[in-house]
Amino acid sequence: MNKVFWHFSRRSQMMKGSIIRETLKITKKPGIISFGGGLPATESFPIEELVVATEKVLREKSEHSLQYGTTEGYPPLRELIADFLGRRGIKAKTDEIMITGGSQQGLDLVGRLFFDWGDSVIMPRPTYLGAIQAFNAYDTHNIGLRSDDSGITVDTMEEEILTNNPRLIYLVPTFQNPDGRTIPAERRQKIINLSSKYGVPIIEDDPYSEINFQERIPLAMRAMAPDHVILLGTFSKLLCPGFRIAWICAPKEVLDRIVLLKQGADLFTNTFGQHVIYEYAKDGALDGHIEKLKVMYKSRRDKMIQSMIDYFPQDVKFTRPAGGLFLWVELPENINTTELLPKAVEKNVAYIPGDAFYPNPGGYNCMRLNYSMPNEDQIEEGIKRLAELFIETLDKQGK
Amino acid sequence: MNKVFWHFSRRSQMMKGSIIRETLKITKKPGIISFGGGLPATESFPIEELVVATEKVLREKSEHSLQYGTTEGYPPLRELIADFLGRRGIKAKTDEIMITGGSQQGLDLVGRLFFDWGDSVIMPRPTYLGAIQAFNAYDTHNIGLRSDDSGITVDTMEEEILTNNPRLIYLVPTFQNPDGRTIPAERRQKIINLSSKYGVPIIEDDPYSEINFQERIPLAMRAMAPDHVILLGTFSKLLCPGFRIAWICAPKEVLDRIVLLKQGADLFTNTFGQHVIYEYAKDGALDGHIEKLKVMYKSRRDKMIQSMIDYFPQDVKFTRPAGGLFLWVELPENINTTELLPKAVEKNVAYIPGDAFYPNPGGYNCMRLNYSMPNEDQIEEGIKRLAELFIETLDKQGK
Repeated sequence: MNKVFWHFSRRSQMMKGSIIRETLKITKKPGIISFGGGLPATESFPIEELVVATEKVLREKSEHSLQYGTTEGYPPLRELIADFLGRRGIKAKTDEIMITGGSQQGLDLVGRLFFDWGDSVIMPRPTYLGAIQAFNAYDTHNIGLRSDDSGITVDTMEEEILTNNPRLIYLVPTFQNPDGRTIPAERRQKIINLSSKYGVPIIEDDPYSEINFQERIPLAMRAMAPDHVILLGTFSKLLCPGFRIAWICAPKEVLDRIVLLKQGADLFTNTFGQHVIYEYAKDGALDGHIEKLKVMYKSRRDKMIQSMIDYFPQDVKFTRPAGGLFLWVELPENINTTELLPKAVEKNVAYIPGDAFYPNPGGYNCMRLNYSMPNEDQIEEGIKRLAELFIETLDKQGK
Repeated sequence: MNKVFWHFSRRSQMMKGSIIRETLKITKKPGIISFGGGLPATESFPIEELVVATEKVLREKSEHSLQYGTTEGYPPLRELIADFLGRRGIKAKTDEIMITGGSQQGLDLVGRLFFDWGDSVIMPRPTYLGAIQAFNAYDTHNIGLRSDDSGITVDTMEEEILTNNPRLIYLVPTFQNPDGRTIPAERRQKIINLSSKYGVPIIEDDPYSEINFQERIPLAMRAMAPDHVILLGTFSKLLCPGFRIAWICAPKEVLDRIVLLKQGADLFTNTFGQHVIYEYAKDGALDGHIEKLKVMYKSRRDKMIQSMIDYFPQDVKFTRPAGGLFLWVELPENINTTELLPKAVEKNVAYIPGDAFYPNPGGYNCMRLNYSMPNEDQIEEGIKRLAELFIETLDKQGK
C-alpha cells in the first residue's frame, strides 16, 4: 500500500495533544498524590438521589429521555438553567440557552462562529488550557495579556484591539482555571466598555462562580452587558462530569447560529443525561448539593493554603482563590516546572506545569494545583512533598 | 448599541438549518402519521434492563461513570465494540476504536481531519443528509454520483477522481439512509480498487447493517480493505439514541489524529452513557434485542411495501430495502414533493422531501419514508393517505 495514502487537512496537522491529559497518564501511579487533575470530589456525587432520578426518567419518560432530542436541548432543563442564572442577576430567556456536550463544545462552537483562519483573540495569561486548545483548531493569533492579582490587566487592551482587530475577548472572570483569580467589578466594566467601543464580543467562561467561599462575588459580565457577552456554564463541577451536560447562553440572534453549527457538529447532546439532571435538580436538590461542595472545597483550600504557608520556602509565591478548584504557584524564575515534574513524580506528588496555560510561550516557573479532588490529609502530605522538592531544588541552585 | 456588533466567520454564514428538523417541527400535529423521522421504535427500548444497568453503574462504578473520561472512550466498551465488529469480519483492535457523541460527531471529525476549504468529496445521490450538512461546514465541493438499484454508480468515478482530486469517498454501503439501497460486493471491490489506485480514503457510514432482514449481506468495506476505510457505527439504532454513543473505527495512525481533534471539540463523550451501554450489553442482551428489532422492523417494512403495492398508482416507483429503516419513493418527474408536503400534512401524513438528500440540486420528485417508528396499522393508513394524495395530484395534472 502506498505510504502517502492519508492526506490530512492543514487544520489537523496543527493539533497538539493536551499536556494535561499526557501528564495525567504519567502521574497515574499507585500512592501518588495528584494535584494535577481538575476533577470534582468523587465522594461528593449524590448517588442515591441519582438512582431515584434515573429510574424515574427511564420508567416515566423513556419516549423522550432515550430518543433523539432537539439541538437546543430539553426545554425544561433550559428553563431551569435560566432560573438558576437569574439568581445571579443574569436575565436569560429559555431561548437564549442551548445545551452543549460540556463547556469544551461551547468553546469549539464559539470558535467556529467567530474565527476565520488566523483571526486574533485576546485572553489572559495564564488562562484555561481547553480554550487555547479549542481556538488553536482555528489557527487563532493568541494575544495573551499579563495578569495581576485581579486577573487580566487592561492597560494594553485598547492598543491590542486597535493593532490586531481581535474577534473575541476570552475570559474566565470568576475563580479562573488555572490561577483562581477573579476580575473585580471595576475592571469588568472597563473591559465591557472596550468591548462596546470596538465591537469585540466577550466570552465569559463561568464553570466556577457557584463554588464561592465568600459572601459576595462580582456581578457576572453577562448580567452587566447581556448584549455583548456569551456565557458558558456547566454541571460538571456543580454535580458531576459524567453526564457531559453544559450550556451556552447568548443573545438569541447569536444562539440561533450556534444551534446551526451544533446541528452539523453532533446534532444534539445526550437526552438521557439532560433528563436525569433535570429530574434531580428540579425540586432544589442541586442547591443543597452546591452548599455541601462549598463547605468541602473551602476546607480543602484552607488546608492547602495553610500547608503552603507552613512548608513552602519564602520565595515561592501562590494565589489565594476565594472560590473554584485551583490555585497557582510561582517559583523563582530560573526553575522550570516541566523539568521538575519527573522528580515530583518520584516523590509521589503531581501537578500541571504552568506553561500549558499560557496562550503564548511563558509560565515555565509556574504550576497549577487542584484542591477539590484530594482530601485534607492528602493535601497536607502532598504539599509537604512539594515543599521538600522545592527546598532541594533551590538549595542545589544556591550551591 | 452598534447594530454591526457581531461579526461571524465565513464558515458560519454558510450553514443552513436541517430541512428534516424543520419539517419535523411542521409535522408535529395531533393525529398525523409521520414517515418523516428516522427514529427507532420507542416501544422497543428495554427499560427494565436499563434500570438494572444504570443502578449498578451508579452504585458500583460512580468513581468512573460520573467522572471525567478519556477522549478515546471507556476501554471495556471499545473492546466490546471490537468484538461486535469482529463477528462481521472486521478485525479491529481496541485502540482502533474511539467513542463519539453520535455518528454525526464522527462525520464532523472526519470533515475536520480531511477537508481544507473547498476540497472535493464523492458521495452518492441521494445520500445521508447529516453527512452533507457536516461536510458543508468545510465548504466542500460535493460530487454526487448517480445511484441505481445497487446504490452509487461507479462508471464516472475514476474520471471524477482524476478531475477533482477528492479527499474522500463517502458511502452508506448497507441499507443506506435515505433509500435503503445496498452496494453489492463486486461494486464495493471496484470502489476499493479506485480508492487504492488514487489514494482516496473511504468513509463507510454503517448505522444499519445489523438491521438486516435477509440471510447474508455483503462484507463490510472496512473488512475488505482495513487500511483504506474509516468505519462509523452507532448504538442509536441498535439500542436507543438517548445515550448518544457511537464509534469510529480507523487505522491507528488516523485514529490518533481524530482523538486530538475530539479533545478540542468536546474532550470526551458522556461516560455515564458509555458505562450503561457496556453494563447492558456485556452479557449478550444487545444481541437478543437486535433480533427482536429485526423481526419488528421486517414486519413494518413488509406492511409498507405491501400497502404501496396495494394503493399507490402504477407510475410511482419505490425501493425495496433488505434492511435498515427507510425506503425511497420516486414520483413522476413533474411532481415536486416539497410543494406537495403541506397537502400531505392536511391529510395527516408526513415524509421528508427528496431534495434534502441530494448533495447537489435534484431529487425534487422523490421522498424518504421511515418504517421503524410507526406501527403496522399506522403504516397502512399512512400509505393509503399518501396514495390518495398521489392520485389526486396526478389526476389534476392529467387534466
